[in-house]
Amino acid sequence: MMTLVSYDVSTTDNKGKTRLRKVSKECQNYGQRVQNSVFEIDVDYGTFLKVKDKLLKIIDPKHDSLRIYYLGNNWKHRVEHYGTKETYDPEGVLIF
Amino acid sequence: MMTLVSYDVSTTDNKGKTRLRKVSKECQNYGQRVQNSVFEIDVDYGTFLKVKDKLLKIIDPKHDSLRIYYLGNNWKHRVEHYGTKETYDPEGVLIF
Repeated sequence: MMTLVSYDVSTTDNKGKTRLRKVSKECQNYGQRVQNSVFEIDVDYGTFLKVKDKLLKIIDPKHDSLRIYYLGNNWKHRVEHYGTKETYDPEGVLIF
Repeated sequence: MMTLVSYDVSTTDNKGKTRLRKVSKECQNYGQRVQNSVFEIDVDYGTFLKVKDKLLKIIDPKHDSLRIYYLGNNWKHRVEHYGTKETYDPEGVLIF
């Protein structure tokens, strides 16, 4: 099941920067960075619930936001990518 | 038809900053900012093709990237939002 996770973490202080690093690391453990603050995480639903739980424990809901889009299993025809990809998709799997 | 547009625009030079402003403005003309570089654009397919065409003319594909997710019409159950919303959703329509 493909899930899209995007986040805005306030980095006006060092605590925010630490949260941003932690969110980013957690997403990278399970998914693929497609843009600066956007990840695609393709895992089963149970695993995703664990990831989501971890992320919700990291963010500060007063300052940060986390947005999740459940793209389902039939997601490939839903996505288009234009422009540079080198930073985010070393395998090129998700780019077409 | 709901469409999600996320973009990374290189802002290492002034031309990049100008592109970022243009992309952002174009997206705001048709959609709603939900995060820093993520917009939800809910228009008919024909209108979206025009928006997409405009965006592709703004970005520099060597330095920027644009990613589009077609969420379809039955998109509301696909989205979850956590944390702060004040910057991005003044009407609160898309937050639940």
